[in-house]
Amino acid sequence: MRIRKEDGAGGKYMMDFLKKHVISRFDSRAGEIALSDLDDSSDFDGYAFTTDSYVVTPPIFPGGSIGSLAICGTSNDLAVMGAKPAIMSMSLIIQDGFTVENLDRILDDMAGWLEKINAQIITGDTKVVEANIGIAANTSGIGLKNKHLERNLEVVREYRSYPYSWVRDRGLAEGDAIIITGNIAEHAAAVMASREGFGFELDVESDVYAVWLFLKHALDTGGITAMKDPTRGGIAAALNEMAEKSRVGIIIEEERIPIGENVKSFCDVLGLDPMSMANEGKVVMGVVADQAEDVLKTLKKAGQKDAAIVGHATSEFEEVVVETPIGTRKVLPPPVADPIPRVC
Amino acid sequence: MRIRKEDGAGGKYMMDFLKKHVISRFDSRAGEIALSDLDDSSDFDGYAFTTDSYVVTPPIFPGGSIGSLAICGTSNDLAVMGAKPAIMSMSLIIQDGFTVENLDRILDDMAGWLEKINAQIITGDTKVVEANIGIAANTSGIGLKNKHLERNLEVVREYRSYPYSWVRDRGLAEGDAIIITGNIAEHAAAVMASREGFGFELDVESDVYAVWLFLKHALDTGGITAMKDPTRGGIAAALNEMAEKSRVGIIIEEERIPIGENVKSFCDVLGLDPMSMANEGKVVMGVVADQAEDVLKTLKKAGQKDAAIVGHATSEFEEVVVETPIGTRKVLPPPVADPIPRVC
Repeated sequence: MRIRKEDGAGGKYMMDFLKKHVISRFDSRAGEIALSDLDDSSDFDGYAFTTDSYVVTPPIFPGGSIGSLAICGTSNDLAVMGAKPAIMSMSLIIQDGFTVENLDRILDDMAGWLEKINAQIITGDTKVVEANIGIAANTSGIGLKNKHLERNLEVVREYRSYPYSWVRDRGLAEGDAIIITGNIAEHAAAVMASREGFGFELDVESDVYAVWLFLKHALDTGGITAMKDPTRGGIAAALNEMAEKSRVGIIIEEERIPIGENVKSFCDVLGLDPMSMANEGKVVMGVVADQAEDVLKTLKKAGQKDAAIVGHATSEFEEVVVETPIGTRKVLPPPVADPIPRVC
Repeated sequence: MRIRKEDGAGGKYMMDFLKKHVISRFDSRAGEIALSDLDDSSDFDGYAFTTDSYVVTPPIFPGGSIGSLAICGTSNDLAVMGAKPAIMSMSLIIQDGFTVENLDRILDDMAGWLEKINAQIITGDTKVVEANIGIAANTSGIGLKNKHLERNLEVVREYRSYPYSWVRDRGLAEGDAIIITGNIAEHAAAVMASREGFGFELDVESDVYAVWLFLKHALDTGGITAMKDPTRGGIAAALNEMAEKSRVGIIIEEERIPIGENVKSFCDVLGLDPMSMANEGKVVMGVVADQAEDVLKTLKKAGQKDAAIVGHATSEFEEVVVETPIGTRKVLPPPVADPIPRVC
């Protein structure tokens, strides 16, 4: 048997692969979160801990680079737990012959984002290889508990019991509003359109962004019960994971899903489903219903002007269901794999 | 300008590359150890933290695999600080078409070493790519302060002031004995000889091993002032780094350097310098002179039967100098690059 692209593509095949080969051997926990929970980060001694390797092609794309991804992506996996990104490691695998100019641009992007989120790289590693990988970057990140997270948990607990010390995928409950913090599918679309020889113009940049910069304000408003960073597998994967882990259904109103006109046309023409395409600066969150409008207001004030309440959690069924403007309903299944490989 | 193999080869060129491109942008510290200290690990809040990506070819070799390297190598970078390896992340980049049998063998090696050192992987990531990389693995590791380390520092401080809370590269002082914990160059030689089409038989296995398993006993005996994990660049790189950071010279007696007969012949025939070849289960350490024989005894009792006192630190000069059996002396320069690429 051989490894297939789908085994690393963020969808159902990857989950099956991880369960069979990785979790079966390594499952353990050092704190509240087990490896098998497949949350965005794990934890130990009150710190959040996560890792991600980036293999995007091309490594420099409209709106950013693998350097922006390496800092934003890993810090986002911490931020959606409510953790303040603080300490990172950085490891590069560089192809012999990669240009120093491109490397410098990538490292500049890293340094810029680190400064914005006030995090630091304290340990690293570099390997040079002959394989035609261009550049691959790994960052591992350590996140801290903080007053924004504590405030959020306080507000949630005014409404119901919440037995977690981080914001967990499994924290969603019936009635919680579902918020998407901005226009979807922009990262995958921008990277795809920038590929050499693609022959399709698209005036969209990647949405790569460090979500901690707005999440800390949303946490201060409080009431967030679950969050995910919808990268590989997109919104469809994130919603399905949240629903499954929380044992609730989710109903989404199709016309409320924020998406830019040009990305929508791009997807229509190419037959791509934007719901399963990667984002790199967005969050899908569940919020206690009474707090949802306030959290939305805070997100908009913090620059996420396209943020929207798109639906709510329900105990009517256990799937993710999308309701069209004319009232018909269809199940949104977890994607089997990301439609566009190597976007992150 | 383009990246060259030497920029990732563990020697002088890599140091220059790191200073110019990485440290210039990212240098910072969260605890006692700055990124620019280029110690085997950094630290934050009393934890040691390190990262390493592994790109060895072939990924399965006599004595182990990239899986053994991923656990031993990263845990060794923690162990030589005196830290107990505890928590790890694991990220894989796998080539589309890599066999599941080989992957399972690699993951089994990881699981086996984790069990031996009582550490755990709590977070991970998998990417599948088309690039001809075979498999690359990153592990980041978090190490804990522990009674073995505290005991060692107590003993060192009976002899002199030691203002560090970990065992640092820069801790060496005049008169300290230099110990190498076993036969050198076995990892690089075993990997090289196992390469397809190499056409040279060598009955040696990689020395890949988790050095914490014997270091904890050596720390209990106490008096260790500096340690390094001599991987890329080998003993020559490790000794030069220690000498430079500690601002002392080191004199080594050539005939005391532990090396197996077959590895020595292999290197002689191929014109390779075993002093600059990678090890994956050895430690170079400085030990307070009065404690050196006791530490050596402990190492042998803990299974490191070829461990040897090979020289001592001196204020006579500032280089690493090797003395031959007939009394002539030659400077051992830091290697410019590892003579064998992609061994770790």
